[in-house]
Amino acid sequence: MFRTHTCGELTIKNIGQTVTLAGWMQRSRDLGGMTFIDLRDRYGLTQLLFNMDTNAALCEEARKLGREFVIQVTGTVTERSNKNLKMPTGEIELVVNTLTILNKANTPPFTIEDDTDGGDELRMRYRYLDLRRKTVRQNLELRHKMAQETRIYLDSQNFIEVETPVLIKSTPEGARDFVVPSRLNPGQFYALPQSPQQLKQLLMVAGFDRYFQIVKCFRDEDLRADRQPEFTQIDCEMSFVEQEDILNMFEGMIKHLFKTVKGVEFDKPFQRMSFEEAMNTYGNDKPDLRFGMKIHELTNQLKGKGFSIFDQAEYLGGICAEGCSEYTRKQLDELTEWVKRPQIGAQGLIYIRCNTDGTFKSSVDKFYTPEDLKAIASIFGAKAGDLIFILPGKKKKTLAQLSELRLEMGSRLGLRDKNIFVPLWVIDFPLFEWDEDTQRFYAMHHPFTSPKPEDIEFFESDSGKVRANAYDCVINGVELGGGSIRIYDQQLQKTMFKILGFSQEQAEYQFGFLMNAFTYGAPPHGGIAFGFDRLASMFAGLDSIRDVIAFPKNNSGRDVMMDTPSIIANEQLHELNIRVELKE
Amino acid sequence: MFRTHTCGELTIKNIGQTVTLAGWMQRSRDLGGMTFIDLRDRYGLTQLLFNMDTNAALCEEARKLGREFVIQVTGTVTERSNKNLKMPTGEIELVVNTLTILNKANTPPFTIEDDTDGGDELRMRYRYLDLRRKTVRQNLELRHKMAQETRIYLDSQNFIEVETPVLIKSTPEGARDFVVPSRLNPGQFYALPQSPQQLKQLLMVAGFDRYFQIVKCFRDEDLRADRQPEFTQIDCEMSFVEQEDILNMFEGMIKHLFKTVKGVEFDKPFQRMSFEEAMNTYGNDKPDLRFGMKIHELTNQLKGKGFSIFDQAEYLGGICAEGCSEYTRKQLDELTEWVKRPQIGAQGLIYIRCNTDGTFKSSVDKFYTPEDLKAIASIFGAKAGDLIFILPGKKKKTLAQLSELRLEMGSRLGLRDKNIFVPLWVIDFPLFEWDEDTQRFYAMHHPFTSPKPEDIEFFESDSGKVRANAYDCVINGVELGGGSIRIYDQQLQKTMFKILGFSQEQAEYQFGFLMNAFTYGAPPHGGIAFGFDRLASMFAGLDSIRDVIAFPKNNSGRDVMMDTPSIIANEQLHELNIRVELKE
Repeated sequence: MFRTHTCGELTIKNIGQTVTLAGWMQRSRDLGGMTFIDLRDRYGLTQLLFNMDTNAALCEEARKLGREFVIQVTGTVTERSNKNLKMPTGEIELVVNTLTILNKANTPPFTIEDDTDGGDELRMRYRYLDLRRKTVRQNLELRHKMAQETRIYLDSQNFIEVETPVLIKSTPEGARDFVVPSRLNPGQFYALPQSPQQLKQLLMVAGFDRYFQIVKCFRDEDLRADRQPEFTQIDCEMSFVEQEDILNMFEGMIKHLFKTVKGVEFDKPFQRMSFEEAMNTYGNDKPDLRFGMKIHELTNQLKGKGFSIFDQAEYLGGICAEGCSEYTRKQLDELTEWVKRPQIGAQGLIYIRCNTDGTFKSSVDKFYTPEDLKAIASIFGAKAGDLIFILPGKKKKTLAQLSELRLEMGSRLGLRDKNIFVPLWVIDFPLFEWDEDTQRFYAMHHPFTSPKPEDIEFFESDSGKVRANAYDCVINGVELGGGSIRIYDQQLQKTMFKILGFSQEQAEYQFGFLMNAFTYGAPPHGGIAFGFDRLASMFAGLDSIRDVIAFPKNNSGRDVMMDTPSIIANEQLHELNIRVELKE
Repeated sequence: MFRTHTCGELTIKNIGQTVTLAGWMQRSRDLGGMTFIDLRDRYGLTQLLFNMDTNAALCEEARKLGREFVIQVTGTVTERSNKNLKMPTGEIELVVNTLTILNKANTPPFTIEDDTDGGDELRMRYRYLDLRRKTVRQNLELRHKMAQETRIYLDSQNFIEVETPVLIKSTPEGARDFVVPSRLNPGQFYALPQSPQQLKQLLMVAGFDRYFQIVKCFRDEDLRADRQPEFTQIDCEMSFVEQEDILNMFEGMIKHLFKTVKGVEFDKPFQRMSFEEAMNTYGNDKPDLRFGMKIHELTNQLKGKGFSIFDQAEYLGGICAEGCSEYTRKQLDELTEWVKRPQIGAQGLIYIRCNTDGTFKSSVDKFYTPEDLKAIASIFGAKAGDLIFILPGKKKKTLAQLSELRLEMGSRLGLRDKNIFVPLWVIDFPLFEWDEDTQRFYAMHHPFTSPKPEDIEFFESDSGKVRANAYDCVINGVELGGGSIRIYDQQLQKTMFKILGFSQEQAEYQFGFLMNAFTYGAPPHGGIAFGFDRLASMFAGLDSIRDVIAFPKNNSGRDVMMDTPSIIANEQLHELNIRVELKE
């Protein structure tokens, strides 16, 4: 070892000891007679002292060290005169006797500090330097701890981690697969898994009973902000269970993670809400419950009073922002512009001020009496001083707009504290989604999701109404995981494929090996998958998943540090029996 | 839950309780008045009892159950009259009141028993049924436990697990990469990692200090027996260490695994042996030390006595098989044929019998006196009753042949017990290997491996003699892991590339981002990677890694269950800007 201790562990207890440290030169202060250097490693910082009076040559040498030089020092642990109690090692310093430069360093292209001067692009190109920053490194330490605790919890619940293959079969349905040409099987391709869905179901058929895996998954999507072509899931499946068992088991896992990693305890069971309630009350299937500001439908109350925009609307709904009645004209205009942006797409914003003096004032006073307004206010339970916003339009679209407005107002009013966590199970999802363009049903979750037994009676006759045994785990408006109880009855599965418009041949081609497996005794089973990157990013208090990933890709799917993807040799392509054919 | 208990937990303590179990119908015995069924789940077997006298209808129903039907039963735990103390649940049986068929099953294509009647090919095609067999399932449970314990140990030593990307940059050197066309970057490709070597070194540059990852790696090789295109490594790297630190740390890991998973304790430090000694004494850089039978060189002793084959040989060496002096003519002929097979390639086999009466008898008596033979025997420390085998030829080739013969004799003599484990560090590997065909040096480990400091003086002048700070962990003749201390000095790295025949441009193109990173302050570092599949297969007492992998591929790289690799749609190829071009 090049050291006897790390840079994070020396305290007042070590005073008088001769120790050796190794690390990076973080910063240097030259005070004439003395030179102080902060030496950094993963574990912390230790102050080094070089003294001109006692060892001028060594001190001169120390003064020549550049930022990020890798050095090894031996010296005596000494009590500091000027203690820094914010640092674990702040009561001591190392009076250095010997100094060895282990490696020199070019001046880094940005400062290695919590608040760096490096831009995103530069930090990604030099990711290995960015990772030296404590803030970034701590995110990855947190991620490690979360993975460890996830495994400890699931292992204690008799889950076994099984590695499923990365080179699997391509299935045309769903998002695009990444594919891998096979040299040994010319003209044929593997696909990288979008999830180990079918394999984990096979493990249930195999009697594995409780499976999990923290596993890389791949999706060749056009990357939106905060998506990565490769991402990590906590993928789980259980046999002989009903929905309730899964919710309890994984509520336990989330509670365990919060408790062991963040010291946060949830004393109550997670709230549960039907998809329908979530959509009607929050305009969203992943509501942020850190604040109320529920959506109320006002269609009956507002129609028929002669205001043509409202009279023509299919749906009218609103939210009430507490304490905002004194918003200025300018603020209201700005919010109106905000909802009219193409991303939101509202045509305008109607408001009702619940004035502090008990009167009401709205932008549609011409059509509504003070009694009308008061009745509306009472629907929201609005108090004097509140401000009600109303949007008209098609129901689905308007609810989505109200949801955006609600989240925006929540942020503006400081109601979305990153240190408060409000977990929720959203349940009773519809089994199918109707697609207007293709005039067919799609599986909202996936084609193996089981309908609720009580809805099976109208499975074929009124498919749109059938609810699924499917569930999402939502915290603070972020969908962290989702899953379902699976179909294990072959006949029901066949009907499912029929409703989804699969021919028997298509179903056979795509899901043949799973369907075949199901004829040999499939147990009732269900599962869930959590987005591990997103979970880690929530724990880290970050808005993006990028900084909980050691080497992330940018929005074009490129790793700018390795400069890849890149061209490969023609020889290599030839061996793989493929040719590049660029489109015009 | 479909059950109150599993099939592995009911004992005498549960007698009188009403319980519900769910599982698979393993086997059924109809004894006229009673029907016994063994119900199976992952946790064990429980005997179910159906009684014609007390519930004829239920008993009739039970008799109709086919093998592998999935059922749920409720009944009373009762003490067995005919106890089976070999089974954890063997003292009780469940007297069943209600029976529900959860799923029917077609008759499986082979029996789900420890000793199955299914051939390899069939079992792989129906892998989900093969995995139901206890012997196979236990291998994967063992693997899970090993992964858990690996993480527990490394976490306790301050290692953090960091996920490195799966979509990385292709490097033409070394084994073939699997590649992945990028749709978003037309004409460009990602590669799947053969190992995260460069990324883990970057994590050291990033100051992560102690990294590990249990990680999938990929190699597009022509598959020999017991290779898989995707395999799993325990990949590790440490900073500020010397070779000794790495050996101690990972000896600790292996000991921890043996202790916690197999209950085997090693009280002594692992033996260490130089590459040179291993080659000269065992003909092999991964000697099986469960038995002695060392190779001794006999060149000086045997030459110059007029036996032309020996006189012309560059090298003569032999082994001594204890207690084999009475081998028959037939046995010796058969062994001679064995060493003459093309896989071994010896020209013949010379023997010396150390007869039980103290005399010697050899196949070359014409050339050697009894005193000559006695002198040879004494080199081996041979006793009366032993048998010495001698092979002549080129040194390297003959040592390899002697190694094969030694292992074969070890097996024949029962000296290679799967329950005995003899660990070993092989150290002091040569840094370079000379390749006759291309007349150049190759890195024996990889181009970042550091030479031993004491050998740097002849780094360029006599490169073949330079030893590396490289090490392999070998148990029972199986190389389980290997690694090295890395070069962190840029100048030394440049010289290394020069000796390996890289132009500066080539080195830059292939390793540019790593070399660049090294200019910003690289710490001294080193690491190791263990083949996790192989380690698990050794723990499971298997000869092949296939049965510690849930869904392995066959020797053509195919998954016969999923029937992949497979063709993909032209549309998909078009989107990826590639075309299949089969060679004639």
